[in-house]
Amino acid sequence: MDVTVSRKAHFNAAHRLYNKNWSDQENSSEFGKCSNPNYHGHNYELIVNITGKINDVTGYVYDLGKLKNLIKVEIEDRLDHKNLNLDVKYFSEINPTAENICVYIYNLLRKKIEDDFKISVILFETPRNFVKYPAD
Amino acid sequence: MDVTVSRKAHFNAAHRLYNKNWSDQENSSEFGKCSNPNYHGHNYELIVNITGKINDVTGYVYDLGKLKNLIKVEIEDRLDHKNLNLDVKYFSEINPTAENICVYIYNLLRKKIEDDFKISVILFETPRNFVKYPAD
Amino acid sequence: MDVTVSRKAHFNAAHRLYNKNWSDQENSSEFGKCSNPNYHGHNYELIVNITGKINDVTGYVYDLGKLKNLIKVEIEDRLDHKNLNLDVKYFSEINPTAENICVYIYNLLRKKIEDDFKISVILFETPRNFVKYPAD
Amino acid sequence: MDVTVSRKAHFNAAHRLYNKNWSDQENSSEFGKCSNPNYHGHNYELIVNITGKINDVTGYVYDLGKLKNLIKVEIEDRLDHKNLNLDVKYFSEINPTAENICVYIYNLLRKKIEDDFKISVILFETPRNFVKYPAD
Amino acid sequence: MDVTVSRKAHFNAAHRLYNKNWSDQENSSEFGKCSNPNYHGHNYELIVNITGKINDVTGYVYDLGKLKNLIKVEIEDRLDHKNLNLDVKYFSEINPTAENICVYIYNLLRKKIEDDFKISVILFETPRNFVKYPAD
Amino acid sequence: MDVTVSRKAHFNAAHRLYNKNWSDQENSSEFGKCSNPNYHGHNYELIVNITGKINDVTGYVYDLGKLKNLIKVEIEDRLDHKNLNLDVKYFSEINPTAENICVYIYNLLRKKIEDDFKISVILFETPRNFVKYPAD
Repeated sequence: MDVTVSRKAHFNAAHRLYNKNWSDQENSSEFGKCSNPNYHGHNYELIVNITGKINDVTGYVYDLGKLKNLIKVEIEDRLDHKNLNLDVKYFSEINPTAENICVYIYNLLRKKIEDDFKISVILFETPRNFVKYPAD
Repeated sequence: MDVTVSRKAHFNAAHRLYNKNWSDQENSSEFGKCSNPNYHGHNYELIVNITGKINDVTGYVYDLGKLKNLIKVEIEDRLDHKNLNLDVKYFSEINPTAENICVYIYNLLRKKIEDDFKISVILFETPRNFVKYPAD
Repeated sequence: MDVTVSRKAHFNAAHRLYNKNWSDQENSSEFGKCSNPNYHGHNYELIVNITGKINDVTGYVYDLGKLKNLIKVEIEDRLDHKNLNLDVKYFSEINPTAENICVYIYNLLRKKIEDDFKISVILFETPRNFVKYPAD
Repeated sequence: MDVTVSRKAHFNAAHRLYNKNWSDQENSSEFGKCSNPNYHGHNYELIVNITGKINDVTGYVYDLGKLKNLIKVEIEDRLDHKNLNLDVKYFSEINPTAENICVYIYNLLRKKIEDDFKISVILFETPRNFVKYPAD
Repeated sequence: MDVTVSRKAHFNAAHRLYNKNWSDQENSSEFGKCSNPNYHGHNYELIVNITGKINDVTGYVYDLGKLKNLIKVEIEDRLDHKNLNLDVKYFSEINPTAENICVYIYNLLRKKIEDDFKISVILFETPRNFVKYPAD
Repeated sequence: MDVTVSRKAHFNAAHRLYNKNWSDQENSSEFGKCSNPNYHGHNYELIVNITGKINDVTGYVYDLGKLKNLIKVEIEDRLDHKNLNLDVKYFSEINPTAENICVYIYNLLRKKIEDDFKISVILFETPRNFVKYPAD
């Protein structure tokens, strides 16, 4: 049976929810105060799960120190202390909801982690609102 | 692949564990101090998970503000600052264990959330005891 | 300079806020849903602080294992899984607000801890509402 | 002896650290990534402490429901989902460090809480960085 | 549909990561400071999940008080305040990584919990590093 | 009025409680399982508080990024993934109780932080046991 190993990380960022094909009024009506044109922000908490077999020699599924560094380079350096809408090209076209940020993070990490491993990402936007991709 | 979005909420309530077909001694023997006839209580922490596709237009699976309101109307207004055994008709017949409260909450929300979405509920009775329905 | 040592504990209890000299309407007007005649309840989290000198021989200010047992006997055995209004004589006369429960706990522990030590008690009624006695 | 009662709240906001009398280079040198011109953001957690005597009739030092509403009107409505630098006049002149935001919150609440009570404010900018005003 | 009930527990232990077939240099190169020959340690947090049907008579899937005692006898008494490498025979041969400790705990509990129930174990080595066995 | 700024950090270490002037039996009698000759360990959580005036130019009392680095160099590099009794000279003579570790950390930081600032240190040995030096 497989084991899942998990690492928590975090980053701080500004964003606004915004559909560029909509008028300001439509954005405000759908997204409320989350669409404030001057942005607001969050301390995002991130959990990355990696599932696979335990390596008999090391006793590791995946070295969590290596995963910590991978999250640093691939995710934190891109998103920490950034304005997601303005500083991250991907979100110039895509609305930076927690769902879309979570998928974005998953896709970045998926490319860097060998296919033998199944991965998933949990993203807390606030202590009460969070998302997981892919779903169980 | 689907995404799960989650919302945390809470309510405070009194209850006692009690099987109405048993004698006081049988209740006390099975449930111990949890069957105190004068009740005890908890700060229940609740997590509601909704799984589905991301809507391309909004970037949401399900609007968590809408879910917050739904939990308020369907769950908190029914259970917060209540005595579960005395104030909630359902638990006049059913023992208000964490398991049964969790199923009750699930059933109330299931009726209000479209069938396209899969849902599940996690209920913390204490920081160390919690239940999930349906199980993964 | 002195050192403070602290121990966290918890207990679950039912209560209602209630002034016995008031009509039901007055109680309801002042205390709202906290005055539900059928009670509600909480997971109370408790922190006991003891301040004094480090004992050169043991390296302890106060043995936290001993404090754990003291809290068990003096506080948890009296309050855990109880209805504060009905099961605890002190609160048949005194309204069991977080403030009054905190003072009650302080007074019980104060009698059992030598006067060389200064003590204080923090009581969380919910994760968002808590009290401290005596104030700093 | 007095009792302290405390209430936790939170708000989400964007900000940048910025001294308007400095060049961009000076701001970047002093504040690093916290001075990103496009802003970043936080989930601010707030604790408001009120110290006074227990009212014999209510058993309260200060009604925490009333404090909850006061924080809502005075603080959350001003700061939640806002850009502190752009949307809050006070921070057009004053650098929105955690220290300065904490003093700002204290001053707003101080005007609304009777002088019989001593108050203090704790502000978490991240789970690892927080400030208190006034200091103990 | 099944329900999962969960219980949190904890134990403190010392360990070092170490492959006995490797030289000191190989161990140090693979495991870094986690291979300190004098050991380091952790507050391990443990979650045990049990999945099954709700018993109609008790309202329980599995009595969490019984599970608490089982974890005490089977896990805490074996691992709490121990040096995993020196005091626990199993880890004289097996590297005490979080993965291997989690499998060890699972196997001990699996023998004591009836086969009608599905179980899994989550082990936090630090607040940021944790593992689950079996994976979902 | 002064402001306090605070930074959380952590380190993992092994230790045993031990008075070198006592027999094994005396150590075991006083310290119980905490005196296991093969050591046990903890995830220590550390809070460093610095109190002073807000600098009008920066808006800081003390740059928390600078404090983070100071804790890294002075405390984490000395204590993280170490055996306190064997790897840290100070604790070859002094019993590494939470109280004594907290004083040790205070003294190291006190030398590196200007005398204009008042400092204090809180050390969590477990989530339920913690100490503060100097006491309020």
